[in-house]
Amino acid sequence: MKAYTEYVSFKTKKRREMIHITSEVEEIVRKSGVRDGLCFVSPMHITAAVYVNDLEDGLIEDIWQWLEDLAPARPDYKHHHTGEDNGDAHLKSLLLHHETTLPITDGHLDLGTWQRVFYAEFDGQRNKRVIVKVLGVS
Amino acid sequence: MKAYTEYVSFKTKKRREMIHITSEVEEIVRKSGVRDGLCFVSPMHITAAVYVNDLEDGLIEDIWQWLEDLAPARPDYKHHHTGEDNGDAHLKSLLLHHETTLPITDGHLDLGTWQRVFYAEFDGQRNKRVIVKVLGVS
Amino acid sequence: MKAYTEYVSFKTKKRREMIHITSEVEEIVRKSGVRDGLCFVSPMHITAAVYVNDLEDGLIEDIWQWLEDLAPARPDYKHHHTGEDNGDAHLKSLLLHHETTLPITDGHLDLGTWQRVFYAEFDGQRNKRVIVKVLGVS
Repeated sequence: MKAYTEYVSFKTKKRREMIHITSEVEEIVRKSGVRDGLCFVSPMHITAAVYVNDLEDGLIEDIWQWLEDLAPARPDYKHHHTGEDNGDAHLKSLLLHHETTLPITDGHLDLGTWQRVFYAEFDGQRNKRVIVKVLGVS
Repeated sequence: MKAYTEYVSFKTKKRREMIHITSEVEEIVRKSGVRDGLCFVSPMHITAAVYVNDLEDGLIEDIWQWLEDLAPARPDYKHHHTGEDNGDAHLKSLLLHHETTLPITDGHLDLGTWQRVFYAEFDGQRNKRVIVKVLGVS
Repeated sequence: MKAYTEYVSFKTKKRREMIHITSEVEEIVRKSGVRDGLCFVSPMHITAAVYVNDLEDGLIEDIWQWLEDLAPARPDYKHHHTGEDNGDAHLKSLLLHHETTLPITDGHLDLGTWQRVFYAEFDGQRNKRVIVKVLGVS
């Protein structure tokens, strides 16, 4: 039984950005040597998320519009009394759920045909980290 | 320490359907021989989800109405430019969060009195798979 | 490899309440002796959730308002035909996702600077339990 951890850094150019990270996560699973187990992926921040869905540009635009409809950027969040202006980023992180777990079988991510892993940045343009922790049988 | 995996197939008659799967998952936990650990359950698709809540018909109707209110079936998703018509199914999957993890204690799912596990299909009438992966101490 | 479980009880004074539980969870991780692994945290109820975000009072008020906007307390849920009046509590639990997993490294919760763990009670004023299960390498 084995645990293996890596931290991946992102600094997005835009404040809000989706980054496709399946191949980075797959490479970490390979390095872990775990053949059968689970792979936990999570930002170490409260204004970002990790989610699994389709790598299709139109859908990604739909997801952005949906996030904005349900957790809009607005000036009047109470959190902004602290000097912050990112209240929407916290709510978007809660809406997508900040973390996800992925299954590993035969040494690879055991995902369906269209399942891809994304880092969703809601308040970027600065260094942020994602923790990838692999746990299982080697 | 042990890892055990099964794939369960579903083909719903209706396009949208909730299927109660607690007993199937419990049976897989029993077969795994794991006494203490975690059970990961996830569709291998991006238009379905697995969630934990009440087995009560009225509430299930409320959940459907709520999913439709917050992630409505509409013709104008950008994803539909690809020829698809299931944009809402992707958003409903994100809203419920596609995967869940369940605790195992003494060889059984360690759920509360009213906690039940559901497969939520948002674009069915075709074969779809759910992965159940059990990880823990035997 | 080791699994360790504790159950934590809550009885909130108000019907709806957020309780900051990071230090309780950290103490359970310490007692588990697990140095590297995962910590699963979940209510054993379907009207509560566990989430990770900021310990900032204004933001917590924003989260309450957002939960009420997207999953409002209303008399007309079908679930209420059973005599219950907590339909919104079930939907709020689904919206925040009832469970979360946390990484453990070097014997401690491996969280980012601002990540804190909260128990979100949506139908309290009675005894409720949270299960914390730690799995990993000692």
